Amino acid sequence: MAQFTHSRRVQFCDTDMAGIVHFANFYRYMEEAEHAFFRSFGFKIVQVQPDGTVVGWPRVRASCSFESPAFYDDLLEIELDITRRGVKSLSMSFLFRRGETKIATGELKTVCCRHEPDGKFHSIEIPAHYREKLCESTG
Amino acid sequence: MAQFTHSRRVQFCDTDMAGIVHFANFYRYMEEAEHAFFRSFGFKIVQVQPDGTVVGWPRVRASCSFESPAFYDDLLEIELDITRRGVKSLSMSFLFRRGETKIATGELKTVCCRHEPDGKFHSIEIPAHYREKLCESTG
Amino acid sequence: MAQFTHSRRVQFCDTDMAGIVHFANFYRYMEEAEHAFFRSFGFKIVQVQPDGTVVGWPRVRASCSFESPAFYDDLLEIELDITRRGVKSLSMSFLFRRGETKIATGELKTVCCRHEPDGKFHSIEIPAHYREKLCESTG
Amino acid sequence: MAQFTHSRRVQFCDTDMAGIVHFANFYRYMEEAEHAFFRSFGFKIVQVQPDGTVVGWPRVRASCSFESPAFYDDLLEIELDITRRGVKSLSMSFLFRRGETKIATGELKTVCCRHEPDGKFHSIEIPAHYREKLCESTG
Repeated sequence: MAQFTHSRRVQFCDTDMAGIVHFANFYRYMEEAEHAFFRSFGFKIVQVQPDGTVVGWPRVRASCSFESPAFYDDLLEIELDITRRGVKSLSMSFLFRRGETKIATGELKTVCCRHEPDGKFHSIEIPAHYREKLCESTG
Repeated sequence: MAQFTHSRRVQFCDTDMAGIVHFANFYRYMEEAEHAFFRSFGFKIVQVQPDGTVVGWPRVRASCSFESPAFYDDLLEIELDITRRGVKSLSMSFLFRRGETKIATGELKTVCCRHEPDGKFHSIEIPAHYREKLCESTG
Repeated sequence: MAQFTHSRRVQFCDTDMAGIVHFANFYRYMEEAEHAFFRSFGFKIVQVQPDGTVVGWPRVRASCSFESPAFYDDLLEIELDITRRGVKSLSMSFLFRRGETKIATGELKTVCCRHEPDGKFHSIEIPAHYREKLCESTG
Repeated sequence: MAQFTHSRRVQFCDTDMAGIVHFANFYRYMEEAEHAFFRSFGFKIVQVQPDGTVVGWPRVRASCSFESPAFYDDLLEIELDITRRGVKSLSMSFLFRRGETKIATGELKTVCCRHEPDGKFHSIEIPAHYREKLCESTG
């Protein structure tokens, strides 16, 4: 059983002239599922911490394999699983389905970072309050 | 004669399942033309000023009338004219053409703002160095 | 009372470096509300008709006035009203709110079209089964 | 030396509230480079063939690794190389640079397909006139 499932209606503007969801939008869908997962714990993906620092989760790597096209108005189910909890990073897998039809599978590796005032990002250990929630969600 | 002309190749991901450029992308194209116009003077649309403040140009209003569809791979010409220079705001018109075919016309009203550290925007008089350049561009 | 209200969570990828929803996305939000309105009657925005023709609703004109910025994770309420039912066209207004805060207002004029096999669009009278539903929704 | 290099200006609407290019846009940039590569041979990515069939290139898999953020107004150089020519598929690699700074690397696997009138895609052998051009481009 997936740790988290997110439903996403395919919007008209997600399609392209081939009549299907443009492949780049699957990465947006993954992110939306990830953020809904964070939201389920009361977290935002970019969040001011109690000490005033800003913590975000930039991507290290993302991939997606496309098995069957998705169409306008489809209601996609996106199953999210955390596949690896590193000290500073999280890896997640995503399975996209429309009913019984497998649409795509994706992976996202993201690293916990402090946003510096100069616009730079520095990787940090995942703060305890994130870690607790993300671990308690394990089956 | 337009004050500034910007060429924009229609990308595949700009189209939708109706086989034409999705209407929301015309607003992005207007913005790209506006930013190319600013860039022609050495300005960025969000720019740290000599005194350390950040100046940007949020939108007050935008509209577009669509006359003929645009297609993948079209090379659009976008003609920009400043239609009104206010103390704090700029209004611009845009004409989209593909060769002799008129595709669309748009308008954009934008206001000069200081970005406050709290994330708010406060409208300001258009700084002199912007005003000079934007005025010298008049025919 | 609005004829139809649609809720839309602001996604991270809807924001820009100014920290707010990019203005072009408001046009996508309007369209999503319009399509949810159509969906509430069992209609798709591009739909094969019983006689095999394809009917769509390309845009004639769209405008939006921006009053207050919208931010990541905001839950926007979008109120849709039909402001004019023409023989071949529909005009709609949109009010964007976050709680009591008015964010933006927009208008969309769309025309009922048959998609021809050559990729062209020809405006047609709004078919009766659309008209009935869209009229019965009036207060 | 790369087989093909494409320059892409980062647009304002490509950024997100973290102040950097949103990761999903790198997949659009890859596609734009790919299409510019096709265009350099006179090909469109969706093209009616002499026999009336429509040939397109849907994606099988795409991945991207992000090394350094890209910012508004950056002029990115995107180097494209064909890494594998299959009978029915093409695999390409992409290197994103801003001057000497390596921004990201990506891969795209795409399969040559005939678009059927029912909206389905069937994989086909890459037609000879594509193959000739794509092969003559090898160093």
